[in-house]
Amino acid sequence: MSYNTFGHMFRVTTWGESHGPAIGATVDGCPPNVPVTPEMLQVWLDMRKPGTGKNVTQRKEPDAVKILSGVFEGKTTGTPIQLLIENTDQRSKDYGDIVEKFRPGHADISYWMKYGIRDYRGGGRSSARETASRVAAGGIAREAIKLLAPDLKITGYMVQMGEKHIDRSTFDWDAIDQNPFWVPSFEAAKEWETYLDGIRKSQNSVGAVIEVTARNVPAGLGAPVYAKLDTDLAAAMMSINAVKGVEIGEGMAAATLMGTENADEIRMGPDGPIFSDNHAGGILGGISTGQDVVVRFAVKPTSSITTPRKTITKTGEETDIITKGRHDPCVGIRAVPVGEAMMACVILDHILMHRGQQGENQGHIG
Amino acid sequence: MSYNTFGHMFRVTTWGESHGPAIGATVDGCPPNVPVTPEMLQVWLDMRKPGTGKNVTQRKEPDAVKILSGVFEGKTTGTPIQLLIENTDQRSKDYGDIVEKFRPGHADISYWMKYGIRDYRGGGRSSARETASRVAAGGIAREAIKLLAPDLKITGYMVQMGEKHIDRSTFDWDAIDQNPFWVPSFEAAKEWETYLDGIRKSQNSVGAVIEVTARNVPAGLGAPVYAKLDTDLAAAMMSINAVKGVEIGEGMAAATLMGTENADEIRMGPDGPIFSDNHAGGILGGISTGQDVVVRFAVKPTSSITTPRKTITKTGEETDIITKGRHDPCVGIRAVPVGEAMMACVILDHILMHRGQQGENQGHIG
Amino acid sequence: MSYNTFGHMFRVTTWGESHGPAIGATVDGCPPNVPVTPEMLQVWLDMRKPGTGKNVTQRKEPDAVKILSGVFEGKTTGTPIQLLIENTDQRSKDYGDIVEKFRPGHADISYWMKYGIRDYRGGGRSSARETASRVAAGGIAREAIKLLAPDLKITGYMVQMGEKHIDRSTFDWDAIDQNPFWVPSFEAAKEWETYLDGIRKSQNSVGAVIEVTARNVPAGLGAPVYAKLDTDLAAAMMSINAVKGVEIGEGMAAATLMGTENADEIRMGPDGPIFSDNHAGGILGGISTGQDVVVRFAVKPTSSITTPRKTITKTGEETDIITKGRHDPCVGIRAVPVGEAMMACVILDHILMHRGQQGENQGHIG
Amino acid sequence: MSYNTFGHMFRVTTWGESHGPAIGATVDGCPPNVPVTPEMLQVWLDMRKPGTGKNVTQRKEPDAVKILSGVFEGKTTGTPIQLLIENTDQRSKDYGDIVEKFRPGHADISYWMKYGIRDYRGGGRSSARETASRVAAGGIAREAIKLLAPDLKITGYMVQMGEKHIDRSTFDWDAIDQNPFWVPSFEAAKEWETYLDGIRKSQNSVGAVIEVTARNVPAGLGAPVYAKLDTDLAAAMMSINAVKGVEIGEGMAAATLMGTENADEIRMGPDGPIFSDNHAGGILGGISTGQDVVVRFAVKPTSSITTPRKTITKTGEETDIITKGRHDPCVGIRAVPVGEAMMACVILDHILMHRGQQGENQGHIG
Repeated sequence: MSYNTFGHMFRVTTWGESHGPAIGATVDGCPPNVPVTPEMLQVWLDMRKPGTGKNVTQRKEPDAVKILSGVFEGKTTGTPIQLLIENTDQRSKDYGDIVEKFRPGHADISYWMKYGIRDYRGGGRSSARETASRVAAGGIAREAIKLLAPDLKITGYMVQMGEKHIDRSTFDWDAIDQNPFWVPSFEAAKEWETYLDGIRKSQNSVGAVIEVTARNVPAGLGAPVYAKLDTDLAAAMMSINAVKGVEIGEGMAAATLMGTENADEIRMGPDGPIFSDNHAGGILGGISTGQDVVVRFAVKPTSSITTPRKTITKTGEETDIITKGRHDPCVGIRAVPVGEAMMACVILDHILMHRGQQGENQGHIG
Repeated sequence: MSYNTFGHMFRVTTWGESHGPAIGATVDGCPPNVPVTPEMLQVWLDMRKPGTGKNVTQRKEPDAVKILSGVFEGKTTGTPIQLLIENTDQRSKDYGDIVEKFRPGHADISYWMKYGIRDYRGGGRSSARETASRVAAGGIAREAIKLLAPDLKITGYMVQMGEKHIDRSTFDWDAIDQNPFWVPSFEAAKEWETYLDGIRKSQNSVGAVIEVTARNVPAGLGAPVYAKLDTDLAAAMMSINAVKGVEIGEGMAAATLMGTENADEIRMGPDGPIFSDNHAGGILGGISTGQDVVVRFAVKPTSSITTPRKTITKTGEETDIITKGRHDPCVGIRAVPVGEAMMACVILDHILMHRGQQGENQGHIG
Repeated sequence: MSYNTFGHMFRVTTWGESHGPAIGATVDGCPPNVPVTPEMLQVWLDMRKPGTGKNVTQRKEPDAVKILSGVFEGKTTGTPIQLLIENTDQRSKDYGDIVEKFRPGHADISYWMKYGIRDYRGGGRSSARETASRVAAGGIAREAIKLLAPDLKITGYMVQMGEKHIDRSTFDWDAIDQNPFWVPSFEAAKEWETYLDGIRKSQNSVGAVIEVTARNVPAGLGAPVYAKLDTDLAAAMMSINAVKGVEIGEGMAAATLMGTENADEIRMGPDGPIFSDNHAGGILGGISTGQDVVVRFAVKPTSSITTPRKTITKTGEETDIITKGRHDPCVGIRAVPVGEAMMACVILDHILMHRGQQGENQGHIG
Repeated sequence: MSYNTFGHMFRVTTWGESHGPAIGATVDGCPPNVPVTPEMLQVWLDMRKPGTGKNVTQRKEPDAVKILSGVFEGKTTGTPIQLLIENTDQRSKDYGDIVEKFRPGHADISYWMKYGIRDYRGGGRSSARETASRVAAGGIAREAIKLLAPDLKITGYMVQMGEKHIDRSTFDWDAIDQNPFWVPSFEAAKEWETYLDGIRKSQNSVGAVIEVTARNVPAGLGAPVYAKLDTDLAAAMMSINAVKGVEIGEGMAAATLMGTENADEIRMGPDGPIFSDNHAGGILGGISTGQDVVVRFAVKPTSSITTPRKTITKTGEETDIITKGRHDPCVGIRAVPVGEAMMACVILDHILMHRGQQGENQGHIG
């Protein structure tokens, strides 16, 4: 990781500002001969795209991704892939108020204190728009995973929105795609719609918790101490805008458990080890066990709300600010495909690293 | 980060196994002319050292650190610093039972599936003993910070042990050093002692949540997207053995907040911006704001307990295991100085990066 | 360095193929508040541009660089800078012959054996067209250097073309810009023009040696062992297409010297140490001394010539090939601005690293 | 590469000063299950060891390597390997004269100007003693290569010493091990012995050119632009103490060639492509072709000679210095095993990277 790049072997660098001419991702280290077309990537961008419902920002961006390099006749060549998404709906007039004032809860003030210059238009580099680049890069990772670990399946969904938690007894994988919140419960989907309507109407916003599960992950991915699979996943998720917490498996609740409860017991199944439970979230000592890899992350409520808030200007004068413009009552909704994309990138990265260092040299059991 | 290394400019590589001849850390990129002696580092190692109380493992290790390079006449030279800690109390006979069996909740099975070979003695590379190397490296980071940000103060403490949470109204910085759990509350210290005694006597173990606060952190540390200060802190903490969750500021609870509650309002103080609260944990958009940087992480309960557990062998046979040996009823206690060390390393790293990219070129307010 | 990226803190990733829609560079880690406009970069691209003379390829590319991110109101913001150069004159019909055949001396065969897929159009990723991206990135590095080391001056020039060597006694800095070969000698410029005319007419090509000198380089840049300034310069120059050798200071001729001849003696000048000579090329132990940094590199003759050459096809059949198309009789000419750009990027990178690790903490003499 | 580390996946960090307690290497990313014992590494250290002949420094160091981690029951475990070599013959009294004075041709002055502190004892970190760590690390790389590319063979030898060049017509692989200079010619060995005797008696020193050839290198190693195989080899060799030039294949002489001469023509052999010659040194476009990989590097003459030389002190006073102590008349001799070690490390690194990114996915011919 460095500045704007993540990944060891599958390396993604995102670039671009919210209201500049374009944003994008430079993807390096992708295996060759992976089928990739703009259409394949567009599917995921459309999932994340603003303007698709009343609960996400009404900014109208086609978010059409162009592939400028690294793909030849529909297949990756092993050379760097440049993905470009033009910013077409910039409406910069909306943002005139924030030239001098810092928006509370936003990076305006920290960017200014760091750099002494900032592109104030729509948050510039710190805008959640950056995550579109990740989703595009994640689309490439997904295609490579299809070839390298065909049964691997990554699914993201919301498990909490504000005070609403899902009831795990109603968990249903099939519900996820059939509601605008990607909630894995038909009951919750209805209830949450009413709840979020109320929040939007009161011109407020609310936080969320997203869970991303990767099923059929090969055992052995990760590294001993600082390139652990869970370390890289924590970094990947924490790097997403507005994320304030990351959990693997049992997560923060592990603190409450007793030793007799926490460690998943091991039995032998037909295809290898099976575990009594998955408190570990599929990772022990930083290395995958073959169980489902389960990550959760908390997204804070959108800071841009129309309620007036106290702030200061660049020259240190105290003032108030109302953030006009187009904003999501729950920015966590759009974080679902972003979390999936980050999971895809991290897992592909570790598949490549593992293949590089170990080849087919793993230990087998039984 | 790669394999066993973390840090961008201040780079720490740890090495060594629990029952090999030694463990240690290779520290590269330290500024020159920082006063460093073995005694300075020993202070921190003694804090973490096993065998200092009934609540931490009874393994007797002097944990005496030697400096083999990079320090000349008591000062760093800017060249790599090799820190070596000998393993003197190896008692390998204790671990005979785990040659063939995988301990539930431990990395035995994942290491085996990854590498096809493992040093089974005391967990080998995956042992929490590795964290002594981090503490030693952190001691160097602390001395460099003293020169570069003299007012910066890093303090770790326990805020939860099993079902016991601290009552923030009794929070007292002075209590931390005066109890074996580093709990910031005189009341909690007494109560938790009784609680943990009961757990130890029942041959069980319990998890914990550690909070690490850095006060007087310069504004402007961090980078836009993937070398964010919170991203690097999340990775640093998640890389510690047994950690399952990491939070910045409000953490997972941010999901429950409304937009009107979460964003810290800004006013102008005598020395720069001040904030109405610190939901942000001192970081906005990945960059420090000058507020306290606050990180929490959850440590799962020690998996090595004397209650029999179901497991399998390398050849896939089902069996039971009782993990004998010397173990902590709450491994989270020893994680306090480790968390402090990781905070010190990450902050120094970002001070150096910031100085490299920006120099004295930051933006000032007012 | 990794795949398509170089630099530690000032990081440049180039992307794009010769006949894809565009090429470019992602530049990360640039200091903020550096004045940068497309016009500033265009100056250097125009120097390198094909089609500017009869001795460089007649491909007509405007090579107009666009800045898509990281620059706001004419200044860098500290966030990643995306530079894009469209490929407008692709004429892919010229290259039909090489779909199946490997061109001798080109990367066609090695790319195929590595990736099992290749963009055969104009050499794809292995085309010297890639160097335009480096020149654009180098333009940014030059502007940053102007602020950080204002007296630093980087000059590249040819010192050998085929069998023609410059006579150092006629060396004249003023000549360099006044001839199409950037030869630092008015006499040589005339003579070499005739010489190269002959080579072009005989449909042959010839190699060259480029020297790049950086004057007024601050002392103290570099690192002890593997991020030595000369190590990074060697890598930077060797990474340029067609380069087969790199020399620092005395270079390969150092092998012929005696100890009494080689080590530059030291005296005290008005502003610091001065040296009796510069066999060292301005670098001792990998760290700059304040003397001129002098690098030379050899560029092999253009492999694309119209003389028939023996080769094989992808299916292993033996055949002949004539490389038609637009090619330089001496590709070394265009390598001059590329070498300058690489020198600028490496030196800026080390200025930032030095400032990060040492700050103003250097040793002074006298 | 960073500071004191090289390698992408097979990462070597060396540490230690000439007259500190020890030197060593931290080797991370080695494949597991590679047989490694101290005895296997000692073979290579003994080749390089000072004190083995009258033409290398008379310092007596056993250079016994200890393995402190990462190897279990004689095999690598995939975790970091710590190699430690104690400094036993430090005789620091020899070096009293250089506390205040800078030795011409040495890094004393540049280290001082960079760091403002230096371990003056025997050159500290800049001593050629550091190369013992590389040789030990290279020993591990060789064992891993034996498993991954069993036919690969790395051989280093001297091709020039001062004014003496080998006559390629007398080249004999069998001669290399049978003379103290590793010259591939029985005739040259005798002649050079007399030549070097004269230089030593006149208290002078002389430079050298070392060539390292790797035979049976798999095709496809390398990466497109900045992790080219030749780029990494150039960096690796230039990072060795006293090296001033690096050549691949034809090297600097490529500048003199015509296009008709330089490009190696391709024919089909029984096992794949064969080439008419090897001007390319086995690398095209940064990627190996299957031909011998051929690297040469020039080592400057030992700067420590007993002839008085002009210099200055730390306080800027002009003075003279005679470097007493134990020094080699041709330090290039000891550079032969070092060059081999660097070749081994770089090639293993690229084998792992290639396996990670491409797997078995390469293109085949015929």
